[in-house]
Amino acid sequence: MKLATLRNGEPDGSLLVVSRDLRRALDATSIAPNLLHAIQHWDDCAPRLQQLSDALNSGKAEGAVDFVPAACMAPLPRTFQWCDGSAFLNHGRLMEKAFNTPPIPDFNTIPVMYQGASDDFLGPAEDVPMPDEALGIDFEGEFGVIAGPVPMGIKGDAALDSVRLLVQINDWSLRGLGPREMKSGFGFLQAKPSTSFAPVAITPDELGAHWRHGRVQLELEVEWNGETFGHPHGGEMNFSFGELIAHAARTRKLSAGTIIGSGTVSNADRSAGSACIAERRVIEIIEQGKPQTSFMQFGDRVRMAARLPDGSHPFGVIDQRVVQAA
Amino acid sequence: MKLATLRNGEPDGSLLVVSRDLRRALDATSIAPNLLHAIQHWDDCAPRLQQLSDALNSGKAEGAVDFVPAACMAPLPRTFQWCDGSAFLNHGRLMEKAFNTPPIPDFNTIPVMYQGASDDFLGPAEDVPMPDEALGIDFEGEFGVIAGPVPMGIKGDAALDSVRLLVQINDWSLRGLGPREMKSGFGFLQAKPSTSFAPVAITPDELGAHWRHGRVQLELEVEWNGETFGHPHGGEMNFSFGELIAHAARTRKLSAGTIIGSGTVSNADRSAGSACIAERRVIEIIEQGKPQTSFMQFGDRVRMAARLPDGSHPFGVIDQRVVQAA
Repeated sequence: MKLATLRNGEPDGSLLVVSRDLRRALDATSIAPNLLHAIQHWDDCAPRLQQLSDALNSGKAEGAVDFVPAACMAPLPRTFQWCDGSAFLNHGRLMEKAFNTPPIPDFNTIPVMYQGASDDFLGPAEDVPMPDEALGIDFEGEFGVIAGPVPMGIKGDAALDSVRLLVQINDWSLRGLGPREMKSGFGFLQAKPSTSFAPVAITPDELGAHWRHGRVQLELEVEWNGETFGHPHGGEMNFSFGELIAHAARTRKLSAGTIIGSGTVSNADRSAGSACIAERRVIEIIEQGKPQTSFMQFGDRVRMAARLPDGSHPFGVIDQRVVQAA
Repeated sequence: MKLATLRNGEPDGSLLVVSRDLRRALDATSIAPNLLHAIQHWDDCAPRLQQLSDALNSGKAEGAVDFVPAACMAPLPRTFQWCDGSAFLNHGRLMEKAFNTPPIPDFNTIPVMYQGASDDFLGPAEDVPMPDEALGIDFEGEFGVIAGPVPMGIKGDAALDSVRLLVQINDWSLRGLGPREMKSGFGFLQAKPSTSFAPVAITPDELGAHWRHGRVQLELEVEWNGETFGHPHGGEMNFSFGELIAHAARTRKLSAGTIIGSGTVSNADRSAGSACIAERRVIEIIEQGKPQTSFMQFGDRVRMAARLPDGSHPFGVIDQRVVQAA
């Protein structure tokens, strides 16, 4: 099934079930007021939401309305935990060159992951407020999962069973602030403004064989100001979402609603392009001696959508404009 | 006023108003079901909670019961954001020596701060589950604030006005995992298990002149297995809580309920002792050539309490035992 969150003036929004083709939606607040509640009471809510979804997809649901992605918040507009890995090692290796940072210990065998801010996520069509163009405004196209409760010390295979929903993410970054925060050892904070999400969170079965080995096996299409920027494939993730969840839960339990991200989707094949500007810049440095591409300016737009072979977008589309913060 | 959270089987617990002397408590759920709700609706809830508090402190409240700290969860058992600074530069400078890390850029003028996990905080008397003694189990005594909503780009003086409540924190750490996570540049994640809180969150006026210049001007007494470990003074913080809030809000707004921590309380005067083992160990290295003190073992207890000149503990007491995780 596919779930979304309608903006209703409340911080958590209200829960919608969305048809597989993203054309129709049903209010689901009789089952759960919002998605955070549904995730926290999943065993009770999921079967009832599935019934709504089945009725909607078979055209038998009463009360269905047109689905309007621009009226949506992030599927979880806020949650109690957001951890983002860097599971595409091709990206990490390139970024080491970009930031000129020392090699990360055990980089090939232990995931790296940062704790993100989870109090204020942006919806798929919301403007993205940034304080200053000089800070190196960049996008990062990613996939992610929303987990149920995870006990401390879980192993990767069992961890994968905790995946409730899949999501598509733009993990906005300020590249001018990253290097100091990395050098401090304390990790990203100012370098990571509010993160954006595609409108629809989906159960893994919605992807069929394209959810396999704990990875979203789809290309993520990225356009910047209407021009193709990249279409890297999610299957090249070096750590599965199960391994990422297990990493996050090594020393503490994770509460239901924890979001775990893949990090920037990145392929060794350079014809796939990139899912962030910083990666393209470091490739330019390697290939041409210096970066050619500038970071984003106010008014710029970025569009991201995973694509199924039939051309449809299972998570819907992120299409946002960067604006100067008030 | 003083507020606490009674364990009631729900993830957010239920709200209590506590008397100034921490002897009596009143159910406050007719005003707000829990503290998270109260913080998010502060302008409405605070005056009504203050009335309850006044009645309780004057002995005129009906329904008052004995206050039992061991029945409490953390004041906010979970919230949407937790950021911890390292605002006592004496500690940071010593820790640089301990971890043998390169100097942090602009260390004296820009705070360092990590994003912490906020989905699962521990109450003042709960056992602390840790996976392995070999990971270097350590405590960190700190102060913190719970903020109301903070707009992006706020300055330090205005930021201080967003402080709603003061808290006392034990920011548990696993020292064996910290160095890799610092070297990765992604910051602490596995090195920071669930954080503990003293039972009572207090409005700044409860400290009188001991809340001054955006700092808790009190000693934090730390005992490990019944022996005094340190009593450093919170007034030596090099950045105020206003400056820490402004740092966290430079590139994004902070939602109501964000907790900002001071980092380990630490004084240049070594007779004050330390509020974490790692700091004592690096002092031993400096003074004696090698560390003498081991990290914690299962069964060990740590007790932390800020102390007013009259000997009372305004936040109550954290007194916990470390146990092997199931």
